[in-house]
Amino acid sequence: MILFNSDYTEGAHPRILERLLETNMEQTVGYGEDAYCEKAREAIRAVCEAPDADVHFLVGGTQANFTVISSALRTFQGVLCAESGHINVHETGAVEACGHKVLGLPAKEGKITAEQIRQQYDLHWSDESHEHIVQPKMVYISHPTELGTLYTKAELEAIHEVCEQCGLYLFLDGARMGYGLAAPGTDVTLPDIARLCDVFYIGGTKVGALFGEAVVITNPGLKADFRYCIKQKGGMLAKGRLLGVQFLELFRDGLYFEISKHAIQMAMLLKEGLKAKGYEFFMDSVTNQQFVIVTDEKLAQIREKYGVTYQQRYDEKHSVIRLCTSWATKEENVRAFLSEM
Amino acid sequence: MILFNSDYTEGAHPRILERLLETNMEQTVGYGEDAYCEKAREAIRAVCEAPDADVHFLVGGTQANFTVISSALRTFQGVLCAESGHINVHETGAVEACGHKVLGLPAKEGKITAEQIRQQYDLHWSDESHEHIVQPKMVYISHPTELGTLYTKAELEAIHEVCEQCGLYLFLDGARMGYGLAAPGTDVTLPDIARLCDVFYIGGTKVGALFGEAVVITNPGLKADFRYCIKQKGGMLAKGRLLGVQFLELFRDGLYFEISKHAIQMAMLLKEGLKAKGYEFFMDSVTNQQFVIVTDEKLAQIREKYGVTYQQRYDEKHSVIRLCTSWATKEENVRAFLSEM
Amino acid sequence: MILFNSDYTEGAHPRILERLLETNMEQTVGYGEDAYCEKAREAIRAVCEAPDADVHFLVGGTQANFTVISSALRTFQGVLCAESGHINVHETGAVEACGHKVLGLPAKEGKITAEQIRQQYDLHWSDESHEHIVQPKMVYISHPTELGTLYTKAELEAIHEVCEQCGLYLFLDGARMGYGLAAPGTDVTLPDIARLCDVFYIGGTKVGALFGEAVVITNPGLKADFRYCIKQKGGMLAKGRLLGVQFLELFRDGLYFEISKHAIQMAMLLKEGLKAKGYEFFMDSVTNQQFVIVTDEKLAQIREKYGVTYQQRYDEKHSVIRLCTSWATKEENVRAFLSEM
Amino acid sequence: MILFNSDYTEGAHPRILERLLETNMEQTVGYGEDAYCEKAREAIRAVCEAPDADVHFLVGGTQANFTVISSALRTFQGVLCAESGHINVHETGAVEACGHKVLGLPAKEGKITAEQIRQQYDLHWSDESHEHIVQPKMVYISHPTELGTLYTKAELEAIHEVCEQCGLYLFLDGARMGYGLAAPGTDVTLPDIARLCDVFYIGGTKVGALFGEAVVITNPGLKADFRYCIKQKGGMLAKGRLLGVQFLELFRDGLYFEISKHAIQMAMLLKEGLKAKGYEFFMDSVTNQQFVIVTDEKLAQIREKYGVTYQQRYDEKHSVIRLCTSWATKEENVRAFLSEM
Repeated sequence: MILFNSDYTEGAHPRILERLLETNMEQTVGYGEDAYCEKAREAIRAVCEAPDADVHFLVGGTQANFTVISSALRTFQGVLCAESGHINVHETGAVEACGHKVLGLPAKEGKITAEQIRQQYDLHWSDESHEHIVQPKMVYISHPTELGTLYTKAELEAIHEVCEQCGLYLFLDGARMGYGLAAPGTDVTLPDIARLCDVFYIGGTKVGALFGEAVVITNPGLKADFRYCIKQKGGMLAKGRLLGVQFLELFRDGLYFEISKHAIQMAMLLKEGLKAKGYEFFMDSVTNQQFVIVTDEKLAQIREKYGVTYQQRYDEKHSVIRLCTSWATKEENVRAFLSEM
Repeated sequence: MILFNSDYTEGAHPRILERLLETNMEQTVGYGEDAYCEKAREAIRAVCEAPDADVHFLVGGTQANFTVISSALRTFQGVLCAESGHINVHETGAVEACGHKVLGLPAKEGKITAEQIRQQYDLHWSDESHEHIVQPKMVYISHPTELGTLYTKAELEAIHEVCEQCGLYLFLDGARMGYGLAAPGTDVTLPDIARLCDVFYIGGTKVGALFGEAVVITNPGLKADFRYCIKQKGGMLAKGRLLGVQFLELFRDGLYFEISKHAIQMAMLLKEGLKAKGYEFFMDSVTNQQFVIVTDEKLAQIREKYGVTYQQRYDEKHSVIRLCTSWATKEENVRAFLSEM
Repeated sequence: MILFNSDYTEGAHPRILERLLETNMEQTVGYGEDAYCEKAREAIRAVCEAPDADVHFLVGGTQANFTVISSALRTFQGVLCAESGHINVHETGAVEACGHKVLGLPAKEGKITAEQIRQQYDLHWSDESHEHIVQPKMVYISHPTELGTLYTKAELEAIHEVCEQCGLYLFLDGARMGYGLAAPGTDVTLPDIARLCDVFYIGGTKVGALFGEAVVITNPGLKADFRYCIKQKGGMLAKGRLLGVQFLELFRDGLYFEISKHAIQMAMLLKEGLKAKGYEFFMDSVTNQQFVIVTDEKLAQIREKYGVTYQQRYDEKHSVIRLCTSWATKEENVRAFLSEM
Repeated sequence: MILFNSDYTEGAHPRILERLLETNMEQTVGYGEDAYCEKAREAIRAVCEAPDADVHFLVGGTQANFTVISSALRTFQGVLCAESGHINVHETGAVEACGHKVLGLPAKEGKITAEQIRQQYDLHWSDESHEHIVQPKMVYISHPTELGTLYTKAELEAIHEVCEQCGLYLFLDGARMGYGLAAPGTDVTLPDIARLCDVFYIGGTKVGALFGEAVVITNPGLKADFRYCIKQKGGMLAKGRLLGVQFLELFRDGLYFEISKHAIQMAMLLKEGLKAKGYEFFMDSVTNQQFVIVTDEKLAQIREKYGVTYQQRYDEKHSVIRLCTSWATKEENVRAFLSEM
């Protein structure tokens, strides 16, 4: 069985495991206050060109999302996001469990626009009953989105600008950020993201680490006491050094970018191969998630040998499936898959 | 200035004030454990033909909604409702503040259908990742809806049936229930509601009382320890007898139904009058809320003498306004309004 | 049966009912934005000598407590209070249900000291693991306390000072404030309280109103968007004018102070009478709650004719009971009670 | 610098790292639904002699605590525990952030008794105002406690019995369970714990794993939908197999018990050595945490070479420090430390 279900079917990049092995019997203090975490923070500040940013390491994406959101908002404030946004559909109501409404906006290809945000903001504040309505205070976007698409630099700049005008925090979920940065044709860099967002995170779990997300806070107003929030929400890893060691290695010699590029090459191989065979795509994705339309018959046949994610029904006879590549995807597996399609 | 803004622009029906005056210096115990509350509970059980129901008196509608919902659900469970449902749009995220996601469904004229509920249920449980998605466990409907429309008995029965099949609680928000029961053409009675819902409330605030909502719980599984929830959520009125006295009077000699009928007569007078003058309606409402389309120019003129609620923009030159009648609406005011339209 | 159980066994002071009757059929807008509420706010600012304070009317005390606390605190912050404080023992965990830990301090006679607060603050911030511990950020005191005792002006000033030094908000629960201000020997005035607290409330429910608490916010940092919190937490009364009318009357011609004085006179009559008969007191209260030690035998006998609150066991044969007077207590009832003791 | 600060100063037991390395490039599905997790669940059921138990793997202890507690309780229910319990003091109010009050009981040496539990239960239900008070519904104990002490089998049985009688859930925090099971003189076994508790967890983080806690649910009433709770609270590790692989190895060939025994041997070496030198202990601990009283002068000297945890002030000139051993503690380090004391 070869799995294309997700971007976390393997463990960690071998270089990361090596470093964990090497440092295993060293003694360090806990909770992210060790030297590895400190060095990893420095490395991330450098690669983000954000020397004043606060960097915190959390274990997973859902945890990162609700910790950031509940730290930033007052009880009556909500977060605008695409209806297809991860926090709105795939986190079992984790943000609501922290007391905040997720304000879903209709999204084309997983993305929302500066215009939509402005419109929601105006709608709220012009309503005579606005005190009866959740106050939008944060914008959550995923880059890449849950549908594999990317924002352009111009789109991000427009969103940034409207957020600044409206006093909204811009929060970017970068669970798959590496794959976005390595995508063909993107004009968005990590320093762009650091410059345009108030807070964001760089995903490790899906890009080479065993686990881990690096939350980067650039807005000084969001920095105070964030570690209390991490602890309260269950995200403060006792052996915090595990996160430091991993992120330090990911950002040494450009490993993060290099392995992301590999995943994209494999995704493009898959995409072009399927296109050549006449398959149509549900979404034109330039990143590591590919959404292909297949007949239900074909799907049944695929599943005998390959793991894929069922995305949604397309029509009576067709389904949309998601195929993921990652840092670990083997070219031979992609070719084997293509040969059977 | 004459107000048609809402159904709570006046105090209470004179009979209610009289009873409050009469009983004012009597001494009673607090928190709803007095004899007036007990008698009022009996009266409500009788009129609902639900001898085994638990009845609790709360102060307001938002409070009733989040107290009922948070009492019934586990943390990961959510409540299905119309996108236009009060809990989804006009309660400042009160349900989310209790930790639960409101699962809004597209709604035609403020109503949802048994089919939609079934579909959401099936969608949830057939999803391979359902543990990552909020579990639908309750259905919230308003009757009348926020747009003045009503469910038919057949619709309620269908919703009841699908809820029973799917193990979902059916919760009916009856903030304006009196006006629904008195509407022309409705085939839904209070005993029907008691028979078909697991829990619902009978609104007093908008139908003759100073304030107060009577929560009726018919599902034995939802009864335990509900008073703890009331207290925790701030809904346990110290002088609980104020609620008992009011509801007892509302359900003595059919006062509740009689004053509701008056409101509907006034609403129909308004509706027919406006229709006769050529106005169009945003929604075909048979209850006490009427949604009329007016030019912005006309609106400005109306507002010099009358209070109305701005509902939403209709097109570039027209707006939708809401006009409410109530138990207290004077015919002369309706006629005066019509004469100027 | 004559009740001394609580200070809310009757309805409202007749003057208040009269005003409700008089204004009953006037039309006003809802949610506290009417002219009565506005005038009542002015009256309260005046009597507090706090011209810049924000004043909000809520329905009940538990609601006022959790709304204020959850509006002021971030998720990881807690509220210091006496172990016997109302929020710690008698609100069914309402503050915790909003996500905040109540940090109970051992309390002599229901009161905490500036020294205790300072000590807790220092203990927190000197702890190497302080991020693992709830951060104290607010101090909650009741005046009068749940045990009928009062702070002196010097004690309040010391608490105020330590709060200011430590960046803690001082929140005073004045559910029975009138009875505290009218107590013999107190040197604390309403302007003192307004000057020394960041936020407090003036209780109406227990002092002449049908219901209602007036929250006064003097700290500008706590003012923003408080009405969103009120709505979300279920405290925004639709017919808000009921609160405005009541508080306006309470603060017209000194009614609030006058009826409070009556309650205290009745309490002192009770206290002196019981003392003269040799009864001992669990607490030396100068306000409207009196805590008397009686034999269990005597208690059984009392309860045949009088309602009292069981406070706690004193020893094997004795219990502590609480007797409350109020604006409505009749002298003849006090004398009747004394004659049987 | 040699660290005795905590039991998580190193990475993982070498056998665990080896297994992670070996399985690193295998493809598995995520979220704990892989074969390693399944086998680890079987191994834990076997060692607990609880063939019907549900086993779930979470990342950390705070997370395990609030996930279990918030899954089991309704909003108005609280959890009884020792005042010194981890959930009460060192989790930044995580349980309260989920809405539940922690009901701290005075605790001798970190332990509570069946009598105390019974008393609290009776106190609650005999109170006339019990609906105004948080309802005790769960008992939380730590074994070993935060002070290194252990319950005897008789004590656990008594607590179990009172919980059963009162309808309370018994939840045991076993973050350091291995060290408790290996302690000299204990008569409590893992099957005892499984038999006597409704839910508990076996700590991995502090006993040889990189991270991870195995939650074991034996009470069928607590099993339903627990995975939704894990996901919502951020505890569902994407690469769940990391937890499966680790726990499978820990419970292969008795590794967990063997390394726990080593930690205890080191702790006893430390304890006896210090005793022999005349040091006194704050607590008579038979597990891996030792609480020693030292002069402040001595403490300053120790800290030049050794990491220790400051526990609390003992008197003006003395402090209590905590020394931890673990599976990774080297005998030479213990001897070096002793030689300088």
